Amino acid sequence: MSGRDEPLLARPTSPQSSTQDLAEEDALLTGQPTARSEDKRHKWREIGLFTWALFATAAVIILAVVAQHQKEALRHPNDPGWGEDGKPSGKRNLIFMVSDGMGPTSLALTRSYRQYAGGLPIDDILVLDKHVIGTSRTRSSSSLVTDSAAGATAFSCGFKSYNGAISVLPDHTPCGTVLEAAKKAGYMTGLVVTTRLTDATPACFAAHANRREYEDLIAEQMIGHYPLGRVVDVMIGGGRCHFLPNTTEGSCRADDRDVVAMAKDNGFHYISSRSEFDTLNAKGGVKLPLLGLLADTDIPYEIDRAHVEDIYPSEAEMAKLALHALSAATKDSEKGFFIMIEGSRIDHAGHGNDPAAQVHEVLAHDKAFATVLDFLDKDDTPGVLVSTSDHETGGLATARQLTHDYPHYYWFPGVLANASHSAEYGAQKWHQFLDSAAASTATTATKRSTVEAIIKDDLGIVDYTSEEVTSILEAAPNWPPSYLFADMISRRAQIGWSTHGHSGVDVNIYASSPKHAPQLVGNHENIEVGQFLASYLDVDVEAVTAELRSKHVKTGDSGLGLPEVAEAELKSLFPDEESAGDYAWMGPPGLPNNDNGQLAVLDNYHGDFKHRKREAEGDGCGCGLMH
Amino acid sequence: MSGRDEPLLARPTSPQSSTQDLAEEDALLTGQPTARSEDKRHKWREIGLFTWALFATAAVIILAVVAQHQKEALRHPNDPGWGEDGKPSGKRNLIFMVSDGMGPTSLALTRSYRQYAGGLPIDDILVLDKHVIGTSRTRSSSSLVTDSAAGATAFSCGFKSYNGAISVLPDHTPCGTVLEAAKKAGYMTGLVVTTRLTDATPACFAAHANRREYEDLIAEQMIGHYPLGRVVDVMIGGGRCHFLPNTTEGSCRADDRDVVAMAKDNGFHYISSRSEFDTLNAKGGVKLPLLGLLADTDIPYEIDRAHVEDIYPSEAEMAKLALHALSAATKDSEKGFFIMIEGSRIDHAGHGNDPAAQVHEVLAHDKAFATVLDFLDKDDTPGVLVSTSDHETGGLATARQLTHDYPHYYWFPGVLANASHSAEYGAQKWHQFLDSAAASTATTATKRSTVEAIIKDDLGIVDYTSEEVTSILEAAPNWPPSYLFADMISRRAQIGWSTHGHSGVDVNIYASSPKHAPQLVGNHENIEVGQFLASYLDVDVEAVTAELRSKHVKTGDSGLGLPEVAEAELKSLFPDEESAGDYAWMGPPGLPNNDNGQLAVLDNYHGDFKHRKREAEGDGCGCGLMH
Repeated sequence: MSGRDEPLLARPTSPQSSTQDLAEEDALLTGQPTARSEDKRHKWREIGLFTWALFATAAVIILAVVAQHQKEALRHPNDPGWGEDGKPSGKRNLIFMVSDGMGPTSLALTRSYRQYAGGLPIDDILVLDKHVIGTSRTRSSSSLVTDSAAGATAFSCGFKSYNGAISVLPDHTPCGTVLEAAKKAGYMTGLVVTTRLTDATPACFAAHANRREYEDLIAEQMIGHYPLGRVVDVMIGGGRCHFLPNTTEGSCRADDRDVVAMAKDNGFHYISSRSEFDTLNAKGGVKLPLLGLLADTDIPYEIDRAHVEDIYPSEAEMAKLALHALSAATKDSEKGFFIMIEGSRIDHAGHGNDPAAQVHEVLAHDKAFATVLDFLDKDDTPGVLVSTSDHETGGLATARQLTHDYPHYYWFPGVLANASHSAEYGAQKWHQFLDSAAASTATTATKRSTVEAIIKDDLGIVDYTSEEVTSILEAAPNWPPSYLFADMISRRAQIGWSTHGHSGVDVNIYASSPKHAPQLVGNHENIEVGQFLASYLDVDVEAVTAELRSKHVKTGDSGLGLPEVAEAELKSLFPDEESAGDYAWMGPPGLPNNDNGQLAVLDNYHGDFKHRKREAEGDGCGCGLMH
Repeated sequence: MSGRDEPLLARPTSPQSSTQDLAEEDALLTGQPTARSEDKRHKWREIGLFTWALFATAAVIILAVVAQHQKEALRHPNDPGWGEDGKPSGKRNLIFMVSDGMGPTSLALTRSYRQYAGGLPIDDILVLDKHVIGTSRTRSSSSLVTDSAAGATAFSCGFKSYNGAISVLPDHTPCGTVLEAAKKAGYMTGLVVTTRLTDATPACFAAHANRREYEDLIAEQMIGHYPLGRVVDVMIGGGRCHFLPNTTEGSCRADDRDVVAMAKDNGFHYISSRSEFDTLNAKGGVKLPLLGLLADTDIPYEIDRAHVEDIYPSEAEMAKLALHALSAATKDSEKGFFIMIEGSRIDHAGHGNDPAAQVHEVLAHDKAFATVLDFLDKDDTPGVLVSTSDHETGGLATARQLTHDYPHYYWFPGVLANASHSAEYGAQKWHQFLDSAAASTATTATKRSTVEAIIKDDLGIVDYTSEEVTSILEAAPNWPPSYLFADMISRRAQIGWSTHGHSGVDVNIYASSPKHAPQLVGNHENIEVGQFLASYLDVDVEAVTAELRSKHVKTGDSGLGLPEVAEAELKSLFPDEESAGDYAWMGPPGLPNNDNGQLAVLDNYHGDFKHRKREAEGDGCGCGLMH
């Protein structure tokens, strides 16, 4: 191989070939280029060019790596399912969590309780705390204080509606939901809750009803008896009573329809107990669609469930089973899944003004949140977790002035740590005693000692007063023992509540990372959360709305056992519609006495602040209707 | 120029020189290279190398531009004062705003009030709403519920301390503040508040005291009579009474020291009226240092100030003057400025449980926030705005259950819109009447009509009841008319409060952009806010702490008219110190009956929840002491 043909990166030729040097010296002396010197010139030029090219190439590689690095840093190291153009791309999963009724104070309350109970330092915070990305404004179309129905409609449809609306707009037409659109786009879908599956939040994803109270109707819709057919692949929670015919024990239906049987006809696998749940879990291969109804009404509060873990699974356990079932079912699919997981009963603890129950509900939800993060970490398919609340419940404050004296600045988590059961549990125990045969012959002393035992053993309060025991014995129907028990804890812990209903404070938005849901960083309307869900899945909610509106399901046509519809009322609502009956499958709109779900804008003060009578039918305290 | 020597990018040689082609053809036929063909080979290799190098170089340039672009995108397009290495660099300003007592509900309350009053759509939100970047956990070292002193110490020193501590640590040694360190580093400094300049929040930046109640002492320290000398260049707010000798009308000092005179001796220019303020404003060139004491105690609530704008400037006006003064004063400096601007009386409206006063306080603070953003936009020096609250006040909830009947889901901003004055103003008017000569001979009917006029004209309530008027006439000292007036508004608006003190909910963190304070995005301890301030300014707070500790200022040595110190108490605190008197300049620690500022951890419930007597000396309702 000649010097000329040598690879450019070879070592220089041997110094022994000195003839070259001589020829070059001649050339230098005469000023005339020799053939050799021309070769040399070429060679050096080539070496120069090669070096330039090489360094430039190395720089390209380094810069490309740096640029890629920065590009990734701009997005998240794992911004799952987001394409480089900022649009969602590829197979992906979306987990949406709802912490029903969890307001800003719920977090401070639970965080400090946990630090107190666990002897933890102040920087040992909740998993949720580490993932807060923004806040959500919650008002509905009918009020500055939303209910869960309007709140969930904002998430499911991306529109504001009136309190009480189950994915129905203020004009009483249905709006397509993100879950329905996801199903149509080929995603698998799921709903996991700790309350009734027919309650407002889950209902809003897979049903449409003019009023949230139509839970019998909602149960039928959710298993597929409605214009779109079956849209949910996994449903786990409570609320079995709305699925069982009123001829069966444990039913709360008005009619004798067996919705469980209807679900099975629609292909659902059905489980109704912890043992069946555990069998599915152990076996692994959960067959879909699955309907899991694990309680007649609600799964017990976490503080109570901890004592009966053999009967009811936790929010985290239910979430985990559903996630793995959906992951397995979509393993070979081009599309992933969408699931809504709700910590439903944070809200109930708020309605009950029970701070001990609430901290355990929030901790259970925090655990479920961590379970989802863990799932996302390990699952092959990229996915995003977004979590928020529909509203705050109770007007909770970690401060309570007990007398007209200026208050001290503290509250006592230790009081909550002493409670081993919820106020609801204590009240049930008391009611069970009152309903028992023993109660009819019991002396006042026996009754008092029964109440005292509950206060000591279940609420962990030893400094109760005689007046407090008397107040339980003499509780009024609209101020039941559960309220009184809860108040005993709240007062001692110096925890304040302003209402047994909801409040209008902004709630937090959480995500697996701010980079996973950049549209939700900062302060947003709750409808933007719903719009994000549809946008991340890239599904066409409007097409579902159009389909729902085009379905001319007449009253009676559907054979769904709908509540009777006031035809005149519907016609007054839809004078231009050929048939007002087109929307009858969603139940009567229920004008004009819709109470908390009423349609008029309620922001104006009407003057009668002293005493408002609840006109709608309700239970004793009225607290069963709206959550 | 031969073909070999042609520039590589020149056009190919003319087709007329066909001899080259022939020689090359020969070479191809014979398989032997000609001299020409060797030249050709060199040439093509050079062209190839050059092309490679050229493309690589072009790629380097493109990639470098892209990388730079992305690097900039990683930071903010205008991430003022942050260097490319993520460290602060160059001349920069830091504006820290405190919304004292503004919790999450204050925002929902004010936003909805504003939308109602202005007929605005739901997406017309507060300026603050658009800048929320995180939340802050607020507990102090002594309680889960902080006071403003411990809250501000977290901001000023970056350490947790006990309720009542003015930049003093739990061991009663002083901690250097970000303002002191900024001054030492060459920044100009400012404090603007709507309450007394000697109140806890501003005090914590330029004074050190074992108890917040030592406002006479704090006044002296703030104008420079303390170990570090003068550290503040602009101070504007209320609290004149602590600067005037008790021989003067309007003084609230215990002694006859003329702190205004002392300030003038220390070089301060002094203004004490709106007209002087306006003159400064009109003239432009504000001379520093400036002490502006524009009210005896607090600047009136914004809802009241709006009627006396000729007497008191707004938070935004005071902020603007201070910002422009500091900007002008640092025009030719290498360093910018640090200023703390407080919407102080959001807290007071919370203590008073007055929702009408609160919405106007929050709106005034929102306007001040917007004013600062505008200043940053226009000022030549880059700067960052960070804003947060020290705590929530009142346990405010936009929901209130008025009876045992289940509550409706709404609250009424219209009630707040009807009020033209604060409850405090109404109560003052009533007290003025009671103190007047007319009162002594007034009939009950006259008294009632006086109260009714206040209720109608100032609170805007027309459906008051006879019982409500009577309650004002018969108000107890610890439940004064101001509380009763405020409650009349709150009940009608269905606004709830749980206390006249503070609560422990997390508060929001705001910034000019999340990119301006990336360390504060998400959920953080309040001390992290303080740490951010020092880190952005890149100042040495620890060095200031060391300096403060090394100053052996003995009791009486300073000539500062310190409160008398219990030597034995100090010695028990500092047994190892050569002289316990070293820290006497901060006033007595005040153990053990420090009440809300007490040192023991207060998280444990002690059992006596029914009635707590306030042991510390205080005013009627005790609400003047702790804010």
